[in-house]
Amino acid sequence: MDVTIAIDCMGGDFGPSVTLPAVSRFLQNDERAGAILVGLPAEVEPAVSAAKSRFGGRLQFQPASEVVNMDDPLATALRVKKDSSMRVAIDLVKEGRAQAAVSAGNTGALMAIARFVLKTLPGIDRPAIATILPTLRGHTYVLDLGANVDCEPQHLLQFGIMADMLVSAVEHKERPSVGLLNIGEEDIKGNEVVKQAGELLRQSGLNFYGNVEGDDIYKGTTDIVVCDGFVGNVLLKTSEGLARMLATFLREEFSRNPFRKLAGLIALPALNAFRNRVDPRRYNGASLLGLRGIVVKSHGSADQLAFAQAIERAAEEARNRLVERITERMARNVAQTALQ
Amino acid sequence: MDVTIAIDCMGGDFGPSVTLPAVSRFLQNDERAGAILVGLPAEVEPAVSAAKSRFGGRLQFQPASEVVNMDDPLATALRVKKDSSMRVAIDLVKEGRAQAAVSAGNTGALMAIARFVLKTLPGIDRPAIATILPTLRGHTYVLDLGANVDCEPQHLLQFGIMADMLVSAVEHKERPSVGLLNIGEEDIKGNEVVKQAGELLRQSGLNFYGNVEGDDIYKGTTDIVVCDGFVGNVLLKTSEGLARMLATFLREEFSRNPFRKLAGLIALPALNAFRNRVDPRRYNGASLLGLRGIVVKSHGSADQLAFAQAIERAAEEARNRLVERITERMARNVAQTALQ
Repeated sequence: MDVTIAIDCMGGDFGPSVTLPAVSRFLQNDERAGAILVGLPAEVEPAVSAAKSRFGGRLQFQPASEVVNMDDPLATALRVKKDSSMRVAIDLVKEGRAQAAVSAGNTGALMAIARFVLKTLPGIDRPAIATILPTLRGHTYVLDLGANVDCEPQHLLQFGIMADMLVSAVEHKERPSVGLLNIGEEDIKGNEVVKQAGELLRQSGLNFYGNVEGDDIYKGTTDIVVCDGFVGNVLLKTSEGLARMLATFLREEFSRNPFRKLAGLIALPALNAFRNRVDPRRYNGASLLGLRGIVVKSHGSADQLAFAQAIERAAEEARNRLVERITERMARNVAQTALQ
Repeated sequence: MDVTIAIDCMGGDFGPSVTLPAVSRFLQNDERAGAILVGLPAEVEPAVSAAKSRFGGRLQFQPASEVVNMDDPLATALRVKKDSSMRVAIDLVKEGRAQAAVSAGNTGALMAIARFVLKTLPGIDRPAIATILPTLRGHTYVLDLGANVDCEPQHLLQFGIMADMLVSAVEHKERPSVGLLNIGEEDIKGNEVVKQAGELLRQSGLNFYGNVEGDDIYKGTTDIVVCDGFVGNVLLKTSEGLARMLATFLREEFSRNPFRKLAGLIALPALNAFRNRVDPRRYNGASLLGLRGIVVKSHGSADQLAFAQAIERAAEEARNRLVERITERMARNVAQTALQ
């Protein structure tokens, strides 16, 4: 075993009914990896015992006595439920028993607990959340997605540096291009924070492409798109909403009458190929960046395939020493700044 | 004739080759309306003369000696090209010879000239740009789309009031619901400006729904969605980019091999119905709100159908006395504030 992933089995809309089979799928596909399943003994332990014969020492169980609910206030998740499955999974990373943690639970709680337990890396003011979106050319990493509102220019710079390390680590792409999300109106060219962030990024040594606009994301103009967490959250959720509306309309048009239904059957291979190509499950797993440990957040509504994808992402990041890379890069950055 | 619309015939990617037939289409469909065509005499006057016999006094020509280009600096558009087709069209509104102006030219230049010539309404700090987006339930008005970055809370309130008047005027819907675009992370719940804007909207007497998230736009949760111009511009362009990517993927999947092509032919009625339903041309025409006159901006790439749609929107706003409605509402607002 080269990496062990701590899994919060209780999180997400479906809990163990999705997370347990997802872990099994992951361990089957990745024979070098191990997993520690964290959850309420009654709901998780029997499944672990049953699968022991199959995965042996690669599969372990770690009990937790409570669960962070989606509507728990942050203070409850952080200060009251100290033995939650989410907390225990992150504790395992802190203790070095696991190299990464994955959870489909409440994003705000996960970030707060991860930040509290693991702490941020030197030189990072605020951890960020990064996700992958499909594009015309492949895919693009976008951050921040909501962990940080009211960002200052240096935060956007740090997001760029962390994403640069993420992409070079997991995509094995040296010097990925970084775009700064902005708007194109001639007279304005973005707000003050973005203008100043552009200056910092230009001087950063990153492969800074310059400003990009909203439509550049899905064009795939750059490997990375950096933005404030408010804007990132809005653009992600707007995209989800638009995709869902278009899927609904398409389905409706192919079921309007018997002829259309027949046409839909004949068109099924093309429609399925289309759907697979933009299947959000393939892009599941948002990375919490800037912490002294790897944490990946799965979409709450993830199914087995999607949750397994998030675990794979965590394993990739751990194998490619993402935390060490960001640490080294930030140390170099601090040294550079000190020399200036 | 009950309304006359001044048309900047030179704007947009295609200039008179699109704008002239669009005006003809508009005048044919709307027998009570008139149009003043503004442009370079050599390019516009012959078409006007030729169509005179058909539309009589409903069609007039007004010469302009220059054109605002897409890459003209704002200062050039505003201070140097004082006889541009864009400027002359807006001057016609100022002089009362037309009740609205339509242009497919540079948005920044159009807003700057409109603001300079027409001035803002009492109580409005900043004019805004509003557009319509299709939703699962119908359509939603979103503003601001880029005229205002770094908004303060009272600006977002004013956007809400202007949009309320716009929707009640052109949709004949009393007290449309207003949503404030925000993000849903538990611990953060939006940036400071949005929090304070929520307070103002709650006390405004508008039918304030509360916070909405990105996916609520295409769900159609509210009739109006209010946001900062930076966020609005990003969400609009991101949507355009995503829609274009999905259309490309769909086309590719239906042309991958002869079987798929045949399936595409059989599926054509459904695919066309789908396309018509979300056809952005049907939603063309963004309203510049908060000015002492009606100005509608067409997408630069608009074709005849789309540009005619923008002219229709301008006529609707003029017929429903949009400027007077906003003026009255703002006066009431000022009186209310004074009483508090």
